[in-house]
Amino acid sequence: MDYAKERYGVSSMIQSQEKPDRVLVRISDLTVQKADEVVWVRARVHTSRAKGKQCFLVLRQQQFNVQALAAVGDHASKQMVKFAANINKESIIDVEGVVRKVNQKIGSCTQQDVELHVQKIYVISSAEPRLPLQLDDAVRPEVEGEEEGRATVNQDTRLDNRVIDLRTSTSQAVFRFQSGICHLFRETLINKGFVEIQTPKIISAASEGGANVFTVSYFKNNAYLAQSPQLYKQMCICADFEKVFCIGPVFRAEDSNTHRHLTEFVGLDIEMAFNYHYHEVVEEIADTLVQIFKGLQERFQTEIQTVNKQFPCEPFKFLEPTLRLEYCEALAMLREAGIEMGDEEDLSTPNEKLLGRLVKEKYDTDFYILDKYPLAVRPFYTMPDPRNPKQSNSYDMFMRGEEILSGAQRIHDPQLLTERALHHGIDLEKIKAYIDSFRFGAPPHAGGGIGLERVTMLFLGLHNVRQTSMFPRDPKRLTP
Amino acid sequence: MDYAKERYGVSSMIQSQEKPDRVLVRISDLTVQKADEVVWVRARVHTSRAKGKQCFLVLRQQQFNVQALAAVGDHASKQMVKFAANINKESIIDVEGVVRKVNQKIGSCTQQDVELHVQKIYVISSAEPRLPLQLDDAVRPEVEGEEEGRATVNQDTRLDNRVIDLRTSTSQAVFRFQSGICHLFRETLINKGFVEIQTPKIISAASEGGANVFTVSYFKNNAYLAQSPQLYKQMCICADFEKVFCIGPVFRAEDSNTHRHLTEFVGLDIEMAFNYHYHEVVEEIADTLVQIFKGLQERFQTEIQTVNKQFPCEPFKFLEPTLRLEYCEALAMLREAGIEMGDEEDLSTPNEKLLGRLVKEKYDTDFYILDKYPLAVRPFYTMPDPRNPKQSNSYDMFMRGEEILSGAQRIHDPQLLTERALHHGIDLEKIKAYIDSFRFGAPPHAGGGIGLERVTMLFLGLHNVRQTSMFPRDPKRLTP
Repeated sequence: MDYAKERYGVSSMIQSQEKPDRVLVRISDLTVQKADEVVWVRARVHTSRAKGKQCFLVLRQQQFNVQALAAVGDHASKQMVKFAANINKESIIDVEGVVRKVNQKIGSCTQQDVELHVQKIYVISSAEPRLPLQLDDAVRPEVEGEEEGRATVNQDTRLDNRVIDLRTSTSQAVFRFQSGICHLFRETLINKGFVEIQTPKIISAASEGGANVFTVSYFKNNAYLAQSPQLYKQMCICADFEKVFCIGPVFRAEDSNTHRHLTEFVGLDIEMAFNYHYHEVVEEIADTLVQIFKGLQERFQTEIQTVNKQFPCEPFKFLEPTLRLEYCEALAMLREAGIEMGDEEDLSTPNEKLLGRLVKEKYDTDFYILDKYPLAVRPFYTMPDPRNPKQSNSYDMFMRGEEILSGAQRIHDPQLLTERALHHGIDLEKIKAYIDSFRFGAPPHAGGGIGLERVTMLFLGLHNVRQTSMFPRDPKRLTP
Repeated sequence: MDYAKERYGVSSMIQSQEKPDRVLVRISDLTVQKADEVVWVRARVHTSRAKGKQCFLVLRQQQFNVQALAAVGDHASKQMVKFAANINKESIIDVEGVVRKVNQKIGSCTQQDVELHVQKIYVISSAEPRLPLQLDDAVRPEVEGEEEGRATVNQDTRLDNRVIDLRTSTSQAVFRFQSGICHLFRETLINKGFVEIQTPKIISAASEGGANVFTVSYFKNNAYLAQSPQLYKQMCICADFEKVFCIGPVFRAEDSNTHRHLTEFVGLDIEMAFNYHYHEVVEEIADTLVQIFKGLQERFQTEIQTVNKQFPCEPFKFLEPTLRLEYCEALAMLREAGIEMGDEEDLSTPNEKLLGRLVKEKYDTDFYILDKYPLAVRPFYTMPDPRNPKQSNSYDMFMRGEEILSGAQRIHDPQLLTERALHHGIDLEKIKAYIDSFRFGAPPHAGGGIGLERVTMLFLGLHNVRQTSMFPRDPKRLTP
C-alpha cells in the first residue's frame, strides 16, 4: 500500500484544461525570508542523486538553482522517493515543498541558504533519458577540461543540439546580454531623434556589384537577398527622415569558413544627414557605441561575470571621446612594428589584430575608429577626400582589434556617383534606381553598419561568432 | 555690376571640406521669440513664386514650413532674386535671413507668425526641374480630388517614386508612427521581462508544409526563406528563455494581389511559456497591444491628425480588458445576420469584416480576440481543445474587422505533435528537427505573430498595406 500515491506521478499533458489558483514561486525568490513556507515551484531537474531513503535533486530555472530533498517520511513514501530518483534529467516538474533554512551553505547552488523539502512531485514534461550533451560539461572552461581531462562539448555538438546548449548559464547570459545590446542601441538612437525603419530583404538587383549574393526564385523571375540595407537607408535620407536606424538580417553568400563570418547575421544600421562634415556622423555613431558599452557594464554585470567564469577575459576598455586614428597613422604604427604595407593596401586580418594590440598598448583602449581609408579599397559610393584624391571620407570601427563597423560619407551627387560607378566597372543599368534617388535634392549624409554578433563576441571576449548567434548560418550549416 | 554676387549661388558639393561653426536653426524653432535674429536654415524649396522685385519661397523641413522672402534691396540684387526664383522645387538650400514677425498670419505654413527675409541663399543639392509627382497633389484627400477634379497621385506613381512620396507630411507621419509601434512593442515586452531574440531567415526545410515558400540557392544546395520565426521562437522556449519576442521580415510566396497581402512584411512575434492555461499568454499579448494603442494615442497624436487630414477616419476604439469572443459566438452573430456557415468553416475576408461591424455595434470596440478556432482550419502544431475535439486552443486578434494576429497554444509533446503532423499528411522527415526540440523537456507555451504594416494601416484607418510599407514587395513589385 502506497500512502503517498496521490502525491506524485506524471501529470497529464497541459492542454489548458483548467485555471488553478496555484502560485508558482521563482527559484530566485527562495531565500530565508520564505523559510517554513509551503511553496509550489516549476523547474527542470538539473541533477538527481538517490541515497538510501532520500533523493537529492537540484532544480533549475535559467541561471538559478536550489536543492530539493525527497525523503521517506510523513509526506513521501518509499515509492515516491524512488519515483523522484528516476525522473530523467532536464525533465520539467512541479514540486510542492517546504522551504527550510540549512545549517551549512549549499555551495553548488545559487540559493545557498535554503533547500526545499518535497511534499508533492509531478512530471510536467519528461526528457528522454539520454541527453546528447551534459549541461555541466557545456559550461566547463576549456582550459580546465584540457588540464584535468574532464569533458567539454565541441562546437558542432552544441550547435546540433542548440535547444539544450542554450539552457546553460553561459548561453542564457550571452543571449540576454545580446538582447541588451539591441535595446541600448535603439534606446540611445531614439533619444537622439532617430527614426526606426524597415527595409526590404528581397531586392531586384544585386546592388553592390553582384558578388556574394544569394539568388531567390521570385515567382517567374529571380531576385536577390540584400547584402545590406544601405541603399534603402540612403533613400530614407533622400526622403527627409534625416536620421534613421534599422536592425535586421543581412545576407552574404561568401564561402568563408572563419571564426567571424556568417552567411546571415544581424546588422545594426545607422544613416544620418549631416550639415558640413561627416565627422558629425562619426561622432554620433561612436557615442552610440559608447552608450551601449556603458549600459552593458551597468545593467549586465551579472551576465558578463557568468560568461567570464567559462571564458575568462580582460574587462572591455574604451575612451571618451573615442580615439580616432587616421589610416596613415595606423600604417606608420604597423610599419614601425615591422609590417610592410603599401599606402593603398587594405588591412589583412592579422594586421588588424596586430594594430589592435599596438593601439591598446599605446592608448589603453579596446575601441577605436580608423578614419580616411584609401579610396581604392572602398565601395564605389564612398565620398573621395577633397584634399587627397587617394583617400576617402570613410572609416571602420574596431573592438579588441576586430572590425565591427564599416561606414563612410556616401556620394550624394548623381553625377559623381555615376563617374565612380563607371570607374569601378559597374553596370549603370543595374544601379539606375539607386542613382536616380539622388536626382531630386539629396542632403550630404554618412552612416555605417554594425555586426551584432561581433559586438557580443568581442565585448565578452569570446572567440567565435557562432557562440553569439543563436542559430548560426555558414556555408556548412543551415540547421537547426 | 551685381553688388550681391557673393551672397548667392550654387555651393560646391559638400565633401566635408571644412567644419564651419555655423549653427543651422530648425524651421520648427522659427517663432516670434526669434524675431529680428539673423539665422541660417537648411531646407528644401517647397514652392517658389516670383512677383516683380520679390520672390516668395516656402521652405520645408519634414512637416514644418516657413515663408521666405527675397526682395531687391540692400542685401539682395535683382540678379539674386532671379536666382532664387529659378531654384528648382525640392532642391536643398542654405539660407541666411532675418526672422521677421508678420502682421497677418501665414495660413499656408506651419510657422504662421514669422517669415524669413533672405540675405544669402546657396543651393546645396539641386533637384531636377521636372518632378515625377507633386507633393501637394500627393497629400490631397481623394474625395476632394474627385469632387473638384484636382490632381491626386495614384499608388504606382507614388511607389515608383517613393523617395519623393515619402517626403509628404502624410508619409512622414505614417512612418514615424510605425517606428513608434515597434518602440512601444519592445518597451512593453522588455518591461514584462521578455528577451529579444534573432532568428534565422534562411532555413533548410520548408517547415509549414512547403506551400508558399521562396527558394534560395545556397551554395550547391537549395534553402528556403522563413515564413515565420515560429519554430525558432519555440526552440527558445524549449531552451528556457521563457518569454521571447522578435521583430523581423517574414516571407510568403503567395500570389495574392490584395490590399492586405505582401510577399515580405514585418512580423512582431511573441512566444511565452505558461503555467496552466494559454489564456495567460492571450492576456499578455492583448495587454501588449493595448499598451501600444495607448502609447500611440498619447505620443503620436500629431502624426495621427496629420494622416487624418488626408485620410479621415474614426478614432480607434478598444476596451480594457480586451473583448474575447469564442468562435461559436461569432458564428452565431454571423448567422443571425443571415450568413450561412458550417461549424468548422474558416472566416472569409468579407465575413471577417462583417463580424467586425457587428462587434463594433454590439460592444463598441475596434479591437477584439476571437478564441477557440475549429481545429480543422489551424496548422498541425495547434493544441486541440481537451474538452471539444473539434475546437483548438487558438485565437486571432482583429483591428477594425481585419486580422492582425494569429496564434495558439502549440503542442509541446513530441508524440501528439507526430500524430497531428501525420494527420495533416506532413512528411515527418522534414520536421524531424522541429519535433526533436521537444524531446528533452518542453514547457507548455503559446504565442502569436503580428503583422506590423497591418497594425499601422488599421489603426490609422488606411486602406492599403502598401501605404504602410516603405518599400513594399508583392507578386508584381520588387522595386525600388
